[in-house]
Amino acid sequence: MNSFGRLFGISIYGESHGKQVGVLIDGCPAGLPISEEDFKDDLLRRKSGAKGTTPRIEDDLPNIESGVFNGYTTGAPILISFYNKNTKSEDYKELFNFPRPGHADFTAKMKFGGFNDFRGGGHFSGRLTLGLVAAGVIAKKLIHPVNIQASLIEAGGKTNVKNAIDNAIKNDDSIGGIVECITENICVGLGEPFFDSVESLLSHIVFSIPAIKGIEFGSGFSAAKMFGSEHNDQLIDSTGKTITNFAGGINGGITNGNPLIFRVAVKPTSSISKTQKTINLNTGQQEELMVRGRHDACIALRVPVVLEAVTAIVIADLMLLEHKVPRVISENSAR
Amino acid sequence: MNSFGRLFGISIYGESHGKQVGVLIDGCPAGLPISEEDFKDDLLRRKSGAKGTTPRIEDDLPNIESGVFNGYTTGAPILISFYNKNTKSEDYKELFNFPRPGHADFTAKMKFGGFNDFRGGGHFSGRLTLGLVAAGVIAKKLIHPVNIQASLIEAGGKTNVKNAIDNAIKNDDSIGGIVECITENICVGLGEPFFDSVESLLSHIVFSIPAIKGIEFGSGFSAAKMFGSEHNDQLIDSTGKTITNFAGGINGGITNGNPLIFRVAVKPTSSISKTQKTINLNTGQQEELMVRGRHDACIALRVPVVLEAVTAIVIADLMLLEHKVPRVISENSAR
Amino acid sequence: MNSFGRLFGISIYGESHGKQVGVLIDGCPAGLPISEEDFKDDLLRRKSGAKGTTPRIEDDLPNIESGVFNGYTTGAPILISFYNKNTKSEDYKELFNFPRPGHADFTAKMKFGGFNDFRGGGHFSGRLTLGLVAAGVIAKKLIHPVNIQASLIEAGGKTNVKNAIDNAIKNDDSIGGIVECITENICVGLGEPFFDSVESLLSHIVFSIPAIKGIEFGSGFSAAKMFGSEHNDQLIDSTGKTITNFAGGINGGITNGNPLIFRVAVKPTSSISKTQKTINLNTGQQEELMVRGRHDACIALRVPVVLEAVTAIVIADLMLLEHKVPRVISENSAR
Amino acid sequence: MNSFGRLFGISIYGESHGKQVGVLIDGCPAGLPISEEDFKDDLLRRKSGAKGTTPRIEDDLPNIESGVFNGYTTGAPILISFYNKNTKSEDYKELFNFPRPGHADFTAKMKFGGFNDFRGGGHFSGRLTLGLVAAGVIAKKLIHPVNIQASLIEAGGKTNVKNAIDNAIKNDDSIGGIVECITENICVGLGEPFFDSVESLLSHIVFSIPAIKGIEFGSGFSAAKMFGSEHNDQLIDSTGKTITNFAGGINGGITNGNPLIFRVAVKPTSSISKTQKTINLNTGQQEELMVRGRHDACIALRVPVVLEAVTAIVIADLMLLEHKVPRVISENSAR
Repeated sequence: MNSFGRLFGISIYGESHGKQVGVLIDGCPAGLPISEEDFKDDLLRRKSGAKGTTPRIEDDLPNIESGVFNGYTTGAPILISFYNKNTKSEDYKELFNFPRPGHADFTAKMKFGGFNDFRGGGHFSGRLTLGLVAAGVIAKKLIHPVNIQASLIEAGGKTNVKNAIDNAIKNDDSIGGIVECITENICVGLGEPFFDSVESLLSHIVFSIPAIKGIEFGSGFSAAKMFGSEHNDQLIDSTGKTITNFAGGINGGITNGNPLIFRVAVKPTSSISKTQKTINLNTGQQEELMVRGRHDACIALRVPVVLEAVTAIVIADLMLLEHKVPRVISENSAR
Repeated sequence: MNSFGRLFGISIYGESHGKQVGVLIDGCPAGLPISEEDFKDDLLRRKSGAKGTTPRIEDDLPNIESGVFNGYTTGAPILISFYNKNTKSEDYKELFNFPRPGHADFTAKMKFGGFNDFRGGGHFSGRLTLGLVAAGVIAKKLIHPVNIQASLIEAGGKTNVKNAIDNAIKNDDSIGGIVECITENICVGLGEPFFDSVESLLSHIVFSIPAIKGIEFGSGFSAAKMFGSEHNDQLIDSTGKTITNFAGGINGGITNGNPLIFRVAVKPTSSISKTQKTINLNTGQQEELMVRGRHDACIALRVPVVLEAVTAIVIADLMLLEHKVPRVISENSAR
Repeated sequence: MNSFGRLFGISIYGESHGKQVGVLIDGCPAGLPISEEDFKDDLLRRKSGAKGTTPRIEDDLPNIESGVFNGYTTGAPILISFYNKNTKSEDYKELFNFPRPGHADFTAKMKFGGFNDFRGGGHFSGRLTLGLVAAGVIAKKLIHPVNIQASLIEAGGKTNVKNAIDNAIKNDDSIGGIVECITENICVGLGEPFFDSVESLLSHIVFSIPAIKGIEFGSGFSAAKMFGSEHNDQLIDSTGKTITNFAGGINGGITNGNPLIFRVAVKPTSSISKTQKTINLNTGQQEELMVRGRHDACIALRVPVVLEAVTAIVIADLMLLEHKVPRVISENSAR
Repeated sequence: MNSFGRLFGISIYGESHGKQVGVLIDGCPAGLPISEEDFKDDLLRRKSGAKGTTPRIEDDLPNIESGVFNGYTTGAPILISFYNKNTKSEDYKELFNFPRPGHADFTAKMKFGGFNDFRGGGHFSGRLTLGLVAAGVIAKKLIHPVNIQASLIEAGGKTNVKNAIDNAIKNDDSIGGIVECITENICVGLGEPFFDSVESLLSHIVFSIPAIKGIEFGSGFSAAKMFGSEHNDQLIDSTGKTITNFAGGINGGITNGNPLIFRVAVKPTSSISKTQKTINLNTGQQEELMVRGRHDACIALRVPVVLEAVTAIVIADLMLLEHKVPRVISENSAR
């Protein structure tokens, strides 16, 4: 399904080289002030333009097509669209029978009987994350003053991210990375047993972001090497604050009021300029493939703002459920 | 929510020290032969009884209360209950105001205003996984001949699991571990963009299992250290088989026909026999706590069969969606 | 699906002649006082025992199997089961190949490949409404002081219900009726555009009750004969009160604060003692059929309490969504 | 929620006087040929233009913004938008504090704290049914050769629809009507116990259409006056055909292979040119109101095509669930 969320619901649509991509948001409370300006910063962070990101230039201006009236959300569905302009579809035409290694080309073709829009990855493109970021901007406003910060803490196994990326570019190659997301000022009690733990909801939406290979909360994989006596976080007061935070801010799937911490592993961009081998699906023969088009050397560079967005979306949903965000935002609220 | 699944839907209910725990399964096709015998092996694996698992003895006999008639599923909801018998609630009475470190005691009390059944963790207990295992038995039959195998590959950071556990027991402590799950014989095309990727659905349900701190698919966290040219799996034929399997059997969120591989990190059991410190929620003062009751030294020992179950549940759901499991199982099927 | 409700979710299970029928309730706030006594009155009203209702005697005692602790709901799922005792399955054995006219026998057999439990209608039996009534009892407590009253206002086309039923019994026949449901003390603003209007949600759950053939809100079918100038309800104050109530308390799918009024048409019980004709599904030949077993001459007699229950369930769901029912009921609430 | 459907999911968005209205369709199988031409006939029927319908002229051209590639559906979400051009918002400006009788003006203002887009009814406008009709066009293609026909069988209580409408127009008034919908060539076995009966799903979506006050299946409200011996439809062969069709093609919530028949009551258009009384919400005083703008004298005239659309949407969903519509439409299919 292309929808996610129980109360703050988002639906993602569009294709990389179609007319537009975007998001339909259902369940946003009325009365939240929203303008197209509000999206600027996060969209710019997603676009990056930093060394290591694709030179495809799109202005990425959001169009609010519904659900906002006189500068405030109305309570009706909000459609935000982004028109595709700078598409170079001819770059991709040859790919229909030559699935790019590491991409969804093969699986999409099999699943959709060859009817999928394969240009630039179509509906599987990283460009679809525009809708996530846009929904995240609204969610962040809703959950104010909850504060979410994600950052790339490692690339290609190194903490010197810049060097690692330069090295990859020099080799016509790409590298992966690790992004950490920390949420502060979050209330106790978010998360729903049995199946809607905070980890369940976050990991569900996080794995919708292309290129994510793993997620860990708090101590994460290192927990597997620890003793219980080390790992148990000791409470220091009755608000739930703990000395250590191996739990990552979650016990029993429910936020405990400490910072919510998780990390994700991002694989190296699958599209690289190096020649690779693939199978010609028409003939079944192995052939060489040069993936033309414009690539990110380190797609992980663009992940932090997307990770913040999906985190905000999940928290908005859970805060609505827990009556921590009102059904109508009052006009003099700080949001 | 205590429900999961779109077409093969499961709902978990019950408390560790209440009358019963169980699962309600909705959407199972009619015509599947089911008897209470079918549950024996997996329930036994979950109970373990191995060194390192709790000595609480429950016979764990499943009661099929509805949805099965003359030995076959009817298409109506299947309720499977497990009666609690061997409960020692007095062990837990004092815990109401003394949250055990690492447990849901504090968060559950805050979220549910103190009305939660706190005895033995109540609805947060690992005992709730009985329902997952029961639903998994049915799902495994449905998806035959898909083959799922999970195993504990590391405990306390060591591959010699037995030694690591002995060491923990000797120290009145507990240890974590890593469980790997491999699914073979799986078809191409399972998983739904944008939000119901195979990774999204699996991680969602996996994080419902108590004590899981992380999940990674294929290369997982090691992908963050790799180059694209290394990580891209090379296709070798038009069925989708690849030389390497860093993708873990998934591209673009959709199964590619190669083995589906993921690993989870299990934290050390929070309940340990060592004295710990906590806060008395009545007084706000720090106090010492001895967690009585019966504990698992390495809860990860019990995770493999639960992991297989939840994997089977997700695959059953996706195969139904993809019309790979029929709506009525024919009587002479091999299932 | 056997589940209904977004925040106050209910799942119905069981078969008329199986081990039990019941309901699993997910999303009920913690802190609501509940005892098995609370169910008595409504269960008694459903059982009826009045002239015109089946003489099958079941004690219909509810068993609260989970989700209630020390007399209060815990916030975890509530399983309420009713054991079947007074089953006479032999009455129904011959029906497998002889579908009773007006029943689900034929459609259930086709849909479920003959695997359905056909005894007494199985999962299609009116007995399944026990779970609805039980969930309704809890919902009514939650939404207090909203007041729902349903009554049989017509049977067999006559307002003298008693005579109409006597007449049907005398003729070994059955009759239909009309039940009206009026909800007072309901707040303004319940109902969600576009698809979850109050009428949409109510009609959805109402048509789950066996034997319902129609539903109308406010003016209902008579609206089709009216002029706009007659039909438009005139507001008399700024709380939304209107002089007439042709709207039935709903505008644009949202409650307007006036009484919520709807009526349903109940068909005559399909099971009658008269000899009828059917098809032998084995031979394709027409044969005569005597439906043995115990029947209601006027099933509409049992509908009012079920209608109140499903109305309460929908209102509870919408009030939770609108933050009009708290997430934790405070102990000194009047509920 | 503004979404409906489990497998063939639709989401409605937009406002009468905003930038656009439309529908997002998720779950449509790949491989269905679709062009903007396909929508022409049904959109024209909805627009009507017949005497008795509003003179607001919109070209109502559908824009397929995503999900279709090279003339075929891709399996990705399909966004269809309709731009609003011929809006006269000044007609409605004064209405903010003067709720029109029979409209959602009052309830929408209360529910959304005055932030709703009230111009022309905003998100509550009948214009939103454009999205339903568009989704219905696709659904009809999917379920081919199932044949759905709806027609206005009565207006203002008369079968001479034309005269009744002329009379209403002459009096600056509006009238209601009854629309009947008959579906033929439908398979046995659609509909899901306990809560997703065919009647439940159809009535749920039908009551999303503005102005609907009642729905009845088969015998409907007349069933309440009948004896069981009359009402029970007699089977005539083992395919399920019956002599009479009081069941309306449904038993136990499941289609029985006979024509699926239901009727809806449509209220008279609330907007009339006659002067009416309302309350000034600012002052609480009664005032006179002239509803300017362009009105339908008989909105029921536009309902048949919408009713066909929502019926097709429900049937498509149930046929997908029952594996009667494939996941990928083969290119040489007749659809």
